[in-house]
Amino acid sequence: MSDLRTIYVGMAGCGTVGCAVGDLLIRDHDALLARTGLDIRLVRAVVRDLGRSRAPHVPDELLTDDLSRLTGDDVDIVVEVIGGTSVAKGVVLAAIAAGKDVVTANKALLALHGPEIYAAARAAGVCVAFEASCAAGLPVIGAIQRGMVANRINAIEGILNGTCNYILSEMLEAGKCFADALADAQRLGYAEADPTLDIDGTDTAHKLAILATLAFGTYVEFAGIAVEGIERISLTDLLAGRELGLTCKLLAVGWMIDGVLLLRVRPVFLADTHPMAGVNGADNAVSLYGHAAGHVMLTGPGAGGASTASGIVSDVVEVALGNARRTFGQLPLFEPKMVKSATVVPPAAPDCGFYARFTVHDRPTALPKITAAFGEAGIKLVKVRSFDGDPPTATDGEHIVLLTNPASESKMPAVLKRIDGCVELTDAPICIPVLEPFERRS
Amino acid sequence: MSDLRTIYVGMAGCGTVGCAVGDLLIRDHDALLARTGLDIRLVRAVVRDLGRSRAPHVPDELLTDDLSRLTGDDVDIVVEVIGGTSVAKGVVLAAIAAGKDVVTANKALLALHGPEIYAAARAAGVCVAFEASCAAGLPVIGAIQRGMVANRINAIEGILNGTCNYILSEMLEAGKCFADALADAQRLGYAEADPTLDIDGTDTAHKLAILATLAFGTYVEFAGIAVEGIERISLTDLLAGRELGLTCKLLAVGWMIDGVLLLRVRPVFLADTHPMAGVNGADNAVSLYGHAAGHVMLTGPGAGGASTASGIVSDVVEVALGNARRTFGQLPLFEPKMVKSATVVPPAAPDCGFYARFTVHDRPTALPKITAAFGEAGIKLVKVRSFDGDPPTATDGEHIVLLTNPASESKMPAVLKRIDGCVELTDAPICIPVLEPFERRS
Repeated sequence: MSDLRTIYVGMAGCGTVGCAVGDLLIRDHDALLARTGLDIRLVRAVVRDLGRSRAPHVPDELLTDDLSRLTGDDVDIVVEVIGGTSVAKGVVLAAIAAGKDVVTANKALLALHGPEIYAAARAAGVCVAFEASCAAGLPVIGAIQRGMVANRINAIEGILNGTCNYILSEMLEAGKCFADALADAQRLGYAEADPTLDIDGTDTAHKLAILATLAFGTYVEFAGIAVEGIERISLTDLLAGRELGLTCKLLAVGWMIDGVLLLRVRPVFLADTHPMAGVNGADNAVSLYGHAAGHVMLTGPGAGGASTASGIVSDVVEVALGNARRTFGQLPLFEPKMVKSATVVPPAAPDCGFYARFTVHDRPTALPKITAAFGEAGIKLVKVRSFDGDPPTATDGEHIVLLTNPASESKMPAVLKRIDGCVELTDAPICIPVLEPFERRS
Repeated sequence: MSDLRTIYVGMAGCGTVGCAVGDLLIRDHDALLARTGLDIRLVRAVVRDLGRSRAPHVPDELLTDDLSRLTGDDVDIVVEVIGGTSVAKGVVLAAIAAGKDVVTANKALLALHGPEIYAAARAAGVCVAFEASCAAGLPVIGAIQRGMVANRINAIEGILNGTCNYILSEMLEAGKCFADALADAQRLGYAEADPTLDIDGTDTAHKLAILATLAFGTYVEFAGIAVEGIERISLTDLLAGRELGLTCKLLAVGWMIDGVLLLRVRPVFLADTHPMAGVNGADNAVSLYGHAAGHVMLTGPGAGGASTASGIVSDVVEVALGNARRTFGQLPLFEPKMVKSATVVPPAAPDCGFYARFTVHDRPTALPKITAAFGEAGIKLVKVRSFDGDPPTATDGEHIVLLTNPASESKMPAVLKRIDGCVELTDAPICIPVLEPFERRS
């Protein structure tokens, strides 16, 4: 660092998040100085195509298309906001090689190439800070690395994708189908032009890999996480769930159970009394279950330029103070020799209740066969509803909806297969787990 | 610090919190070493009376009654868990004078003597860390000082006293009167033997003073906070509120409105859809409204030995890493020259709705007079209920309950006085504000 009090920041990328970072660093420069005693100056923003660049909040004279201008002596900290994993990886490794500390919000990059990047940073004596990579401006990384560092974390759970949460909330609130709610999310800027990684759970799993690695002190392979997206969630299920007092969320879970780490991303139903059931719109939520602190939950905006910039600039301040280097260098996270072995076992979930919906031709005939199939598998039913457009549904057909007592998930495929063999189903059955808060589970 | 990797901790006090700190530092020593790379050793615990001391989790050979043994060369960090403001202040200032960093959870001490203590620490080149002083193990101080440091904070709101929140929850859930719920809280260890400072709002105001000082970057005098406790909240009001979709919480608020800082602790009603309405039992919640991060909320246990110890040990780690000294030394918080002037204006609250209850002799006669008094003051009524033991109430008498549209609080005393003049009231009228979430207020 050239000077503890004056910090020169170079930025790679200047899209929505980059512009928001520029806005915070430039417009709020004096307020930041007053709060932190640090004179933090954005000196450069590298963009792909100067001709096409429109970067509100970042003066033209700071823009360049020359990536090499991030690694000179006039830059202390490199902020990477390009996104993606190809160009960004090269930029981050080049910055590290040039002795720069790096701040990034790039969850895909860290989930897929974290160990290589962290090792390079350790070797170079610099740090990588990434508070904004998970849940944007919610300080969840700080909560794990600092505030709850005295805890053995038994579980983390999270609503980590604002687009999915917006879609699920908006479908139910406005009675919209999935496609219309997705179009809204894109129009409002929550979803990318290509929202595949949001919708299919990949983005959530990237974040879970990062959080679980920190929380459980073991390197979590992204590929080891079982992932299911929200593509199959229909308004019919959201409405039927509401009748049963249940709300659907795309939930990331990391549970340490008897020394086995279970990692999973999938849509689940939560009882209306569950602490995350009321987290709506583009908000995120993260629950951390510590052995001393208990159940700590953070909620708030988990996406968007300003919120992400808030997380990025907080990292810039921690790097500028020298704190981030000490934390990164001292805490043995990511150090292979300190990594505990962990087994990632997706299918071995603890027992839980299940919501199931069957679309049938003929309810009176189908109902006894369906309930019998569950009974024969030893799974008790708590509630059974059948309806035909009442409560209002978004799909045609006659529906049988049921809720089971806690049961082993391993039994479900056989039950569904048996029902498929003896009932004429007009659509694939839907089966969604109903999760209790972690501390209330057996 | 004698050695970056081995840190010697001396503790002043060894009650509930001290024993929990001892438990974390001793029993989890190796786990902490694995997570932090720091060999943190509790070397001493000073107690008042060795003869009377029973300190589970802290070996007898660490106990001493000699306070001077905290300031020797064999102690790096002094953890103060005595509580109160007399002995504790002397211990903290002596530790600072001896060049020790101090970790404390003592909100009364910091709210009343913060500037003196911070100035002494700055002069000695050491730091004071106090994450556990507000909301115990919830990392709210870290969220303000680090995670949201890039934000101008527009408001903070909090449920900051576990005893009060437990009492209000338990009264409603179990249909208990105030005295019985308080006795339960004492039996469960949430409330002190003398719970006065909890119940009357003082403890909450201590925490608000600390949080507001950090959040708004201005020294907040404890004496400038308007405080009202929960002594007057009856089961009748909790039940009548529930009928109206409202939940009662003892809320601390710090609002920056047009450059004026409004600070207040009082019982309020929150709509069931308010994000804090579902925070029950001994849990705490803190909302931070940042100009970039938006509304960030932390919830979880805000009291108890283990949770407080979690916050204290996280501070010990940050102090041991050297981060706490940098943050304390560099951030201009508490530096008189950096303090902005702030006006604390308790009575000038923004308009809000009000819940009011009148206990009367004769409902048919009283009702028109009461509604007329509000009408003449230009305050519209949203709902009016009158009942006589139905819904079940804990007090005798006939009740008229009403809910107003948003109105200026300054109008209320005159209305209540007018009603007192023309209606025979058998008890003092109850008037409780109904608060919207900060971002939804005009």
